[in-house]
Amino acid sequence: MAKDAITARDKDYSKWYLDIVEAAGLSENSGVKGCMVIKPHGFAIWELIQGALDARIKATGHSNAYFPLLIPKSYIMKEAEHVEGFAPELAEVTHAGGEKLEESYYVRPTSETIIGATYSKWVRSWRDLPILINQWANVMRWEMRTRPFLRTTEFLWQEGHTVHATEAEAEAETLMILHDVYTDVVERVMAIPVYKGLKTDKEKFAGALRTYAIEAMMQDGKALQAGTSHNLGQNFSKSFDIKYQSQENTEEYAWTTSWGVSTRLIGALIMCHSDDDGLVLPPAVAPIQVVVVPIYRSDEEKAKVMETIARLTAEWAGKFRFKVDDRDYENFGFKVSEWEVKGVPVRVEIGPKDIEKNSAAVARRDRPGKAGKSFVDQAGLTEHIESLLAEIQQALYDRAKEFRDTHTYTAETYDEFKTQVQLGFVRAYFDGDRKDEDRIQDETKSTVRCIPFDQPDVEGKCFLTGRSTKRVCIFAKSY
Amino acid sequence: MAKDAITARDKDYSKWYLDIVEAAGLSENSGVKGCMVIKPHGFAIWELIQGALDARIKATGHSNAYFPLLIPKSYIMKEAEHVEGFAPELAEVTHAGGEKLEESYYVRPTSETIIGATYSKWVRSWRDLPILINQWANVMRWEMRTRPFLRTTEFLWQEGHTVHATEAEAEAETLMILHDVYTDVVERVMAIPVYKGLKTDKEKFAGALRTYAIEAMMQDGKALQAGTSHNLGQNFSKSFDIKYQSQENTEEYAWTTSWGVSTRLIGALIMCHSDDDGLVLPPAVAPIQVVVVPIYRSDEEKAKVMETIARLTAEWAGKFRFKVDDRDYENFGFKVSEWEVKGVPVRVEIGPKDIEKNSAAVARRDRPGKAGKSFVDQAGLTEHIESLLAEIQQALYDRAKEFRDTHTYTAETYDEFKTQVQLGFVRAYFDGDRKDEDRIQDETKSTVRCIPFDQPDVEGKCFLTGRSTKRVCIFAKSY
Repeated sequence: MAKDAITARDKDYSKWYLDIVEAAGLSENSGVKGCMVIKPHGFAIWELIQGALDARIKATGHSNAYFPLLIPKSYIMKEAEHVEGFAPELAEVTHAGGEKLEESYYVRPTSETIIGATYSKWVRSWRDLPILINQWANVMRWEMRTRPFLRTTEFLWQEGHTVHATEAEAEAETLMILHDVYTDVVERVMAIPVYKGLKTDKEKFAGALRTYAIEAMMQDGKALQAGTSHNLGQNFSKSFDIKYQSQENTEEYAWTTSWGVSTRLIGALIMCHSDDDGLVLPPAVAPIQVVVVPIYRSDEEKAKVMETIARLTAEWAGKFRFKVDDRDYENFGFKVSEWEVKGVPVRVEIGPKDIEKNSAAVARRDRPGKAGKSFVDQAGLTEHIESLLAEIQQALYDRAKEFRDTHTYTAETYDEFKTQVQLGFVRAYFDGDRKDEDRIQDETKSTVRCIPFDQPDVEGKCFLTGRSTKRVCIFAKSY
Repeated sequence: MAKDAITARDKDYSKWYLDIVEAAGLSENSGVKGCMVIKPHGFAIWELIQGALDARIKATGHSNAYFPLLIPKSYIMKEAEHVEGFAPELAEVTHAGGEKLEESYYVRPTSETIIGATYSKWVRSWRDLPILINQWANVMRWEMRTRPFLRTTEFLWQEGHTVHATEAEAEAETLMILHDVYTDVVERVMAIPVYKGLKTDKEKFAGALRTYAIEAMMQDGKALQAGTSHNLGQNFSKSFDIKYQSQENTEEYAWTTSWGVSTRLIGALIMCHSDDDGLVLPPAVAPIQVVVVPIYRSDEEKAKVMETIARLTAEWAGKFRFKVDDRDYENFGFKVSEWEVKGVPVRVEIGPKDIEKNSAAVARRDRPGKAGKSFVDQAGLTEHIESLLAEIQQALYDRAKEFRDTHTYTAETYDEFKTQVQLGFVRAYFDGDRKDEDRIQDETKSTVRCIPFDQPDVEGKCFLTGRSTKRVCIFAKSY
């Protein structure tokens, strides 16, 4: 699919998204309802996100482990809220090895229950705590309406599951993951600015005491929940009997947390940065950061050009992820278009004229057309690209942040709110309860995305109830 | 579980294996029949094996991707041999989202079918070939008798799936993976010597044209198939309609391959190197390569010792994977025993006496007791450990190879064969057919592990039929 086949954002945002996924070769539908095939380019992006997350998860003291895909039916039933939240979405294995099973299994929708059952065996004494474990896994939630990366029946994710001696330690873990792992990766690696805060009871994880989230704004003004971190309190330790002997020799229920981000992040990446020409990738998550496209019209020209390219790229291994596109059976225009659609941050073009002038043409993907093109001395090309990649990484973040800030509104009345929430986020004093949240959702399709950490010092008037309150919430329509 | 609780190998080899898995904290049974929890130490070993494989898979031109966990029933049915091979082991999802499904799905036992269905859409022209893709995934085969790592209902693996224009290219790919990826990782990273060769028709993969394998010898003389690489011929391309337009404008069925290794390799690692004191790990796959255990009897002594350790280990980050065991609530003997059981290749002990003498005690795990202990000048400690790790890596390989070579026999008669195959491998002239293989299996529980690449130049007499033949096979009982 060529770039001129991509629907424009302002024409049909939803179609634009699907076009990008297809044109950039990120994923495609499979023969399994709601499940996608993650294609090499899409998976390479995921591997870079994974690498950034995994490094931080380990640096903060966690180890990876692996728990079973299947969960006995009886486990899921043990935590009441959890069951209620996940029951409608479960896929069930009823037969195996040619026979009907005595007790059927669910394909994990998340692993609190099977991990809780395991931890109850591992935890005996305060010496066993904390347990700090993460799992990279596939999970399955039977969804009616699916969209590539954003909502699929099967998706890939990491799920951290930790056990602590005290509520304070569990709370510290929950927040540390949100700040030092999730926010750091999403903002600094993926160049997506986020609002951070607490979920309301209506929006929290099924079975959690408190859920914290990071929320990103897409280019249509909608929110995408990019990661969640749950303080599970003692809910799961009571359901699964996770108890420890304290230093004072008393028996205590432990405090647990869980936290996860998924392949959904790729959806956020697409919708935050890309344009009508295709995917736009921050260099830190670009599988190919620099592509070199040779220009030639004869074998003789090609030989010269390729020799120059070989010399210029000789020191690039280990510095950049780069590719030289020397395909003979595709023409120059096709190649340029393909790498634009795939979101490669920097394109270098070298032809006979450039060799004469000892220069190279350098184009940056985040500024299409002439605005982003410059001619650079071959002598300084490597250094130029190095600083250009850093510049693009920052520019994408800045652009996304400016967009988000100018699309974050402040409503004082429900009427104002109704208009604003169709355009972007609304940050407003809100004193309502769950019923009010339900009403707002019914009437505007928007929800409380989070109660941001960053709260005002002074009281204000709730836009809905008119009551005085110190609580500010962020509302938005969401993916 | 302490090391004195580990059953001796010569007493009960099978129990010894289970004891090691438990004592070293590698895995444990879960609430799901035949599925294990891979614990942090076991998973960290897997991550190191994965890393070594993934680097080589990418260096040889492959990309990672991800295909659905579930496979429509109709897909599995398309390739006749494949169905027959896998049908008895399938887990079936019949219900989802609270309803009975119209067509049920199988949890993938391997992915040739779902990937074949996808490739049929991707392959149009010779320009699309080769397709070189790998997937890291969990798979499920409903096994009756399971053993941790060796045979579990769910396991983790990589499965490569490639498409080529010609049989020669598919064959070259199949062999390249066997030599440059699998043999290289298993021999050089895991320090396990292997025999390489072709499987007989009886032993090949369900649906393959030819299966190649690497076979390792365990300490009880049994074989463990450590990796397989299949030339699938045109079987799957015909079942799934993977066709391409050639450069000569003819329509051709493509040639496909698949290849995989799994968490089974951890079983091989345990059974190849470990001893009656616990796990023994080659440094390249040891999550902790060096452990430092301080010796002290007072807070004052501890302060001094820890100061010395901090100084000595200051330059170790990035050089070794190391850990300083400063737990106050465990004693010295417990710590030493724990790290031995977990297979840490090098242990450094430092106490007040060592500080006086400016030395450190260094113990190597592959030579337990006094034989492997030496006192090293603190000034040269880092260099000493560096070369010691390399030495241990080689020593483990050499020891395993010597064991294998002295336990590989040559039978000239079936009587000789019967005795020898209870002790190790038998490499012998064999001219029999499938019926003969079945008979040998019935009577001796052994199978042809492979027809090694390394074949004799001269004819010999088949140990079973007495006929003249040039074919030598390797037989063994196996896991």
